Amino acid sequence: MRKNASKELYKQVYDYVVHQIKRGEWKEYDKLPSVRALAKEFKVHRLTVLKAFQLLKEDEILYVKDKSGYFVGPEKVLKENEGRTISTYVENNHLSTIHQVPAAYQFSKALIDPGLLPNKYFSEYVKKVFDLYPKVLGTYSNVQGDDELRYAFSSYLLKTYRFYASQDELLITSGAQQAIDLLAKTLIQPKDTILVERPTYSTAIDIFRQYGANIVGVEIGPSGYDLSELEHYMKNYRPRLFYVNPTFHNPTGYTVPVVQRKRLVELAEEYKCVIIEDDPFRDIYFKGKPPLPIYTFDTEGYVIYIRGFSKYVSPGLRIAVVVCKHPLMKNLIIAKSLADNGTSLLDQKIFLLYFFSERMQIHLSKLRTALYLRKEIMERELNDTSWKWTSPGGGFTLWVEMPEGLAVDQLLKSSIKHSLTFVPGIICDTQGRMGSWIRLSYSYANEEQIQKGIRLLIQTSNDLKYFD
Amino acid sequence: MRKNASKELYKQVYDYVVHQIKRGEWKEYDKLPSVRALAKEFKVHRLTVLKAFQLLKEDEILYVKDKSGYFVGPEKVLKENEGRTISTYVENNHLSTIHQVPAAYQFSKALIDPGLLPNKYFSEYVKKVFDLYPKVLGTYSNVQGDDELRYAFSSYLLKTYRFYASQDELLITSGAQQAIDLLAKTLIQPKDTILVERPTYSTAIDIFRQYGANIVGVEIGPSGYDLSELEHYMKNYRPRLFYVNPTFHNPTGYTVPVVQRKRLVELAEEYKCVIIEDDPFRDIYFKGKPPLPIYTFDTEGYVIYIRGFSKYVSPGLRIAVVVCKHPLMKNLIIAKSLADNGTSLLDQKIFLLYFFSERMQIHLSKLRTALYLRKEIMERELNDTSWKWTSPGGGFTLWVEMPEGLAVDQLLKSSIKHSLTFVPGIICDTQGRMGSWIRLSYSYANEEQIQKGIRLLIQTSNDLKYFD
Repeated sequence: MRKNASKELYKQVYDYVVHQIKRGEWKEYDKLPSVRALAKEFKVHRLTVLKAFQLLKEDEILYVKDKSGYFVGPEKVLKENEGRTISTYVENNHLSTIHQVPAAYQFSKALIDPGLLPNKYFSEYVKKVFDLYPKVLGTYSNVQGDDELRYAFSSYLLKTYRFYASQDELLITSGAQQAIDLLAKTLIQPKDTILVERPTYSTAIDIFRQYGANIVGVEIGPSGYDLSELEHYMKNYRPRLFYVNPTFHNPTGYTVPVVQRKRLVELAEEYKCVIIEDDPFRDIYFKGKPPLPIYTFDTEGYVIYIRGFSKYVSPGLRIAVVVCKHPLMKNLIIAKSLADNGTSLLDQKIFLLYFFSERMQIHLSKLRTALYLRKEIMERELNDTSWKWTSPGGGFTLWVEMPEGLAVDQLLKSSIKHSLTFVPGIICDTQGRMGSWIRLSYSYANEEQIQKGIRLLIQTSNDLKYFD
Repeated sequence: MRKNASKELYKQVYDYVVHQIKRGEWKEYDKLPSVRALAKEFKVHRLTVLKAFQLLKEDEILYVKDKSGYFVGPEKVLKENEGRTISTYVENNHLSTIHQVPAAYQFSKALIDPGLLPNKYFSEYVKKVFDLYPKVLGTYSNVQGDDELRYAFSSYLLKTYRFYASQDELLITSGAQQAIDLLAKTLIQPKDTILVERPTYSTAIDIFRQYGANIVGVEIGPSGYDLSELEHYMKNYRPRLFYVNPTFHNPTGYTVPVVQRKRLVELAEEYKCVIIEDDPFRDIYFKGKPPLPIYTFDTEGYVIYIRGFSKYVSPGLRIAVVVCKHPLMKNLIIAKSLADNGTSLLDQKIFLLYFFSERMQIHLSKLRTALYLRKEIMERELNDTSWKWTSPGGGFTLWVEMPEGLAVDQLLKSSIKHSLTFVPGIICDTQGRMGSWIRLSYSYANEEQIQKGIRLLIQTSNDLKYFD
């Protein structure tokens, strides 16, 4: 499974060579730097460069003169190659690819079953929006977000976490994912080192990779991080940022304890490393409320807080809020203005009326119960196996370690044939090494589907074993 | 005014040096490359590098040993400096800054007066959406855009331009600006050369700059481009893309003739240069319909078409469509999925019901008349001056050349004091040289405001002359 990671590396070298030739840095018949030199520059193994060179040779972009090295081929070859496709600089979105598989037993999406959402009430709130704001569709939103909504959030944060953030320190984005993207764009330049948890939200990896980050993984376990490992990374790599999801963590469900939260803020300050705290699952707790967000312990502005609501208010409304102290906020607003010039005002107003309503609180309380039951059913079905997991105190997913020797990629293939999907752990790990783990989401399928689906999954894995 | 452009260059060098030191490429007490070498690498004047070095010296990041050059200062200095602010990689959004000025005479926004929009009908359409799609807020949209909406667009394009683009060749974005951003992200890597018109939509410049593009300007005049100049650029710079707005061009109002449109497609194919055609003003014509979009002449997939609707359907609904042939579409969808995971489904459904309705056609026809009248009033008021412009056949703006010697930056300052805003031409030019032009928008202010405002503007400019 390491193949994938190394595939990306040689592809990077391949693209780099093509890019240099196109830019005219290396002209036709020029000699290329040695494999050794490029390997050093890219900090990769020499075999990786060699692989890229061989492919470039096959594509007739480079040619070899015996023993004297690799040379740039005639210009026309590159042009012909270009003609075939328009080359691009976009990486993959791995999770999105899996979600596109239609499945009767949907355990890959960490989303709420649409049946659990209060759809029938939404139309009332929308009508109310038009009564209150008849010109809502006639104007752009303020780029930073609707004033009224930011004011309401500011009060909400104060009331809920006893933490004051002014309206000016809040930015409304079109979902948490846009927030991650804008922050990445604002903070990361190619080859900057950043930290993420291992495992982590795989789309975040794809986003950071898109901006050329050098990503280092920090292990997260049931009781949080290894703080001395973390400090070692901060000291030696001087990372720009550490992207964390410390509360009912996706995919593991783990929660980082308070004492570590406080220490994390100290480390961030000491090593000037921005903490990006992504917190979409906070309100989905099963036993008791989780510890306060990390950003509530921050006084120096090193923690940026992302609170998305698609997960339980409505996936249809793309609303998240970013809490960030000046002066970074100024740059975030510019990035937002260049990205889409502001989130849909209608969506913001619907959210405003709904989120702070009594009905929303009732919905949330019912939702917690429903998800708790689904989790219990999933765990009960899994109890008969030798698979291992830590029962989460909240969130949407189980992070399950499969028995040694079970080929998770084979299991996924067979499962898809049986109309069942899950997320293979490997795409949640920057190092591509969590190959024996899977993420099972209990939030999307209903109780019956969970029961039948998990039995089917167990059966599929047993068949696989016999088949070997 | 050229100061600004050069400020950005030395700042780039400054940031580069800091970045290299942070990454450990240059360590404390290391000698830096010579001013000459860096100037060559950055393709800038040596004085620019010298300016950056002097600032770095003032900030104690570098120090000088007499006659032997510049050296990296002690590590702790950089760290102390870092403590002050968190550095970021975002450039400015110039237009957004001007729009934030509250003004009684608003001639800077190329947006429609909200009073001209059919606000009272919108709530009906929204109610209809909830009748037809009760679960619309309970699900994400397809990343590529709602199937029904893309189907409707595909039919619309066929009916309107006799051009077939399948649903798969359409992507729905949250406004045209997001489309430009996603295309830039997909196609541009730092130092790639791209072409834009001179002048052009200033936010597009800011977006392309954000991705590190080397931007070359192609002049646009009342009868289009100088095609031999254009071919020269394509041949010599091998640009990745040419961003154009050939129909009622922003800011000039010019329209590129059919014969040039066809030739442009040939050049794009010959030099493998993607044409990005931004077309938000097409339906705002005053005399007759404009020529067909450039993309209708394209058979090889080199033209990408962006059709935004915020300009006249509703700024509140962030909806645009991108028409793009495979295989680039695949990468655009990934970029969209990483940027925000899909545009608000509610907004898409409202747009679907409204845009293809009879009422929309009636609105559009009334709108054309209203805008034509406003343009006429603005031009009548300007007729008494020596200011020069070409009367546009459509669109939202007049592009006006001010008399020689008039300081446009002074005029803007004085105007803002009188609660009047316009766009200074300089921010619409990549070379920062169109200092004697201004863009006056007649779409946002009402007839009375236009009359009074233009008189005020003329008075302000006269006062300025006397003052000199």
